[in-house]
Amino acid sequence: MRNFDENSITMAVLDRVANASDGRTQQISQALVRHLHAFVKEVEPSMGEWEAAIGFLTRTGHMCDDKRQEFILLSDTLGVSMLVDAINHRGTAGATDTTVLGPFYVQDPAVFPLGSDISDGMKGQPLFVSGTVSSTDGAPLAGAAVDVWHSDEDGYYDVQQMEELGGLSMRARLFTDEQGRFHFWTIKPAAYPIPHDGPVGQMLDAQGRHPYRPAHVHFMIHAEGHDTLVTHVFVAGDEYLDSDVVFGVKDSLIQEFVRHFPGEAPDGRIMGREFHSLRYDFRLKRLSASAA
Amino acid sequence: MRNFDENSITMAVLDRVANASDGRTQQISQALVRHLHAFVKEVEPSMGEWEAAIGFLTRTGHMCDDKRQEFILLSDTLGVSMLVDAINHRGTAGATDTTVLGPFYVQDPAVFPLGSDISDGMKGQPLFVSGTVSSTDGAPLAGAAVDVWHSDEDGYYDVQQMEELGGLSMRARLFTDEQGRFHFWTIKPAAYPIPHDGPVGQMLDAQGRHPYRPAHVHFMIHAEGHDTLVTHVFVAGDEYLDSDVVFGVKDSLIQEFVRHFPGEAPDGRIMGREFHSLRYDFRLKRLSASAA
Ligand SMILES: [Fe+2]
Ligand SMILES: [Fe+2]
Repeated sequence: MRNFDENSITMAVLDRVANASDGRTQQISQALVRHLHAFVKEVEPSMGEWEAAIGFLTRTGHMCDDKRQEFILLSDTLGVSMLVDAINHRGTAGATDTTVLGPFYVQDPAVFPLGSDISDGMKGQPLFVSGTVSSTDGAPLAGAAVDVWHSDEDGYYDVQQMEELGGLSMRARLFTDEQGRFHFWTIKPAAYPIPHDGPVGQMLDAQGRHPYRPAHVHFMIHAEGHDTLVTHVFVAGDEYLDSDVVFGVKDSLIQEFVRHFPGEAPDGRIMGREFHSLRYDFRLKRLSASAA
Repeated sequence: MRNFDENSITMAVLDRVANASDGRTQQISQALVRHLHAFVKEVEPSMGEWEAAIGFLTRTGHMCDDKRQEFILLSDTLGVSMLVDAINHRGTAGATDTTVLGPFYVQDPAVFPLGSDISDGMKGQPLFVSGTVSSTDGAPLAGAAVDVWHSDEDGYYDVQQMEELGGLSMRARLFTDEQGRFHFWTIKPAAYPIPHDGPVGQMLDAQGRHPYRPAHVHFMIHAEGHDTLVTHVFVAGDEYLDSDVVFGVKDSLIQEFVRHFPGEAPDGRIMGREFHSLRYDFRLKRLSASAA
């Protein structure tokens, strides 16, 4: 219980956390200690490197506020978020694929009626989005809450430019109609770098990586009796589809954002200029009886 | 380069960090990804547990300021600090054993002449500390900088009670004399809980652990041409010697804090009340020619 060296210290810490009253806490604590010590033993950090690691984590924490979540960016860029996502979505064959939540979701977005323009007059190419929400067995899901959020044409989210915008934009909650359908207008999003003026950006630089994500629209869909779906729809042809900095792209989530000449849009609106349209049909997994 | 699942994601991230221009950055990044992913694959966190981990790290970061270093406390309580210390002090046979720096060191403490009372009149039992600093070959080291810091009789450091104290206390830099000797007066420190009103305290609670460290005096000793020594001297007989929350105790660092009746102290001072004395001789490793 004293005189620990680099061989005995790991067992000593494992013993110490064995008294956790909760079995899951004990399991996670012991796994953390084993893997963390194995990492340290492999890289053999100098005292200066250990100090640098403490400094990196501290700066990452200090970067976090109600508009910025640097630890989620760290999890995303190290592939941890996609790994956790994969682990939590086994056995969902038939349902729409999932991908990362990302750091820009805002709880309880404003509700817009179907057909609304959710971009609040932001500059950009008009985009008409429509689709359906159904159960994996094909039954349409009426009244499903479709949360949507995306970047502007320069790749920035509303929460990154609150002073300029004076409020939220390009973000909404819509409810599907009796046939499980939804549609709305907005502007076409752009590829963007994740916020990289902080510790995570410094890490990407040091690792020789670019900070870009291919253009996409985020969706989070809640329907009674079903697993909540968190995903994106990516713009087909984007140059970053094969190097997404957060490893989030799946072929099934890439869709053509169709370009249209001025004229009548799918909802009958007459467009005086070019616009794009996106259609995507989402399928949600029914909760099993035991989980419901 | 898309469609990563829980098997392929790790290799994808390893490939991505393989472009680091600096070899050490690449090595550390790849080891981090392998061990972090192995941890996640073993514990299979739920989405809620992943959110809890992000929240824990964020709160740990927010707890850090110029007086509190919660990430060092986390490293200390998970045994990482002692592991890094052990890795960095191989082959120092003959030198004084090292232990953790801890979170309470303050850079460039005030210089006190030998024989000073560094406690600034703090309430507590008087303690006379003396010793020598020499090279592992026995040569005394004159002019070595001996930084010392410790808690008060209730277990609190000066930096934890700046408002009450109005300044630093129980902390000093002394320089050894021509024979490598030092001595000073202070008060006897107490066993103490590490600061446990933050995320690390919550972790210890959940793990069923107490937050205590056995009573000790910290030393950091710099001498030209030698490795800097970071260590403590622990009070013999302390009830926490076998359960130090940061795993820092070594038998070679435990010393009797000798109790004396009122009378003449080792430096000739006449004490009107009981006091303690501590003597410890430190040995520093000479830098190898290549490292010097
Ligand atoms: Fe996004
Ligand atoms: Fe201490």
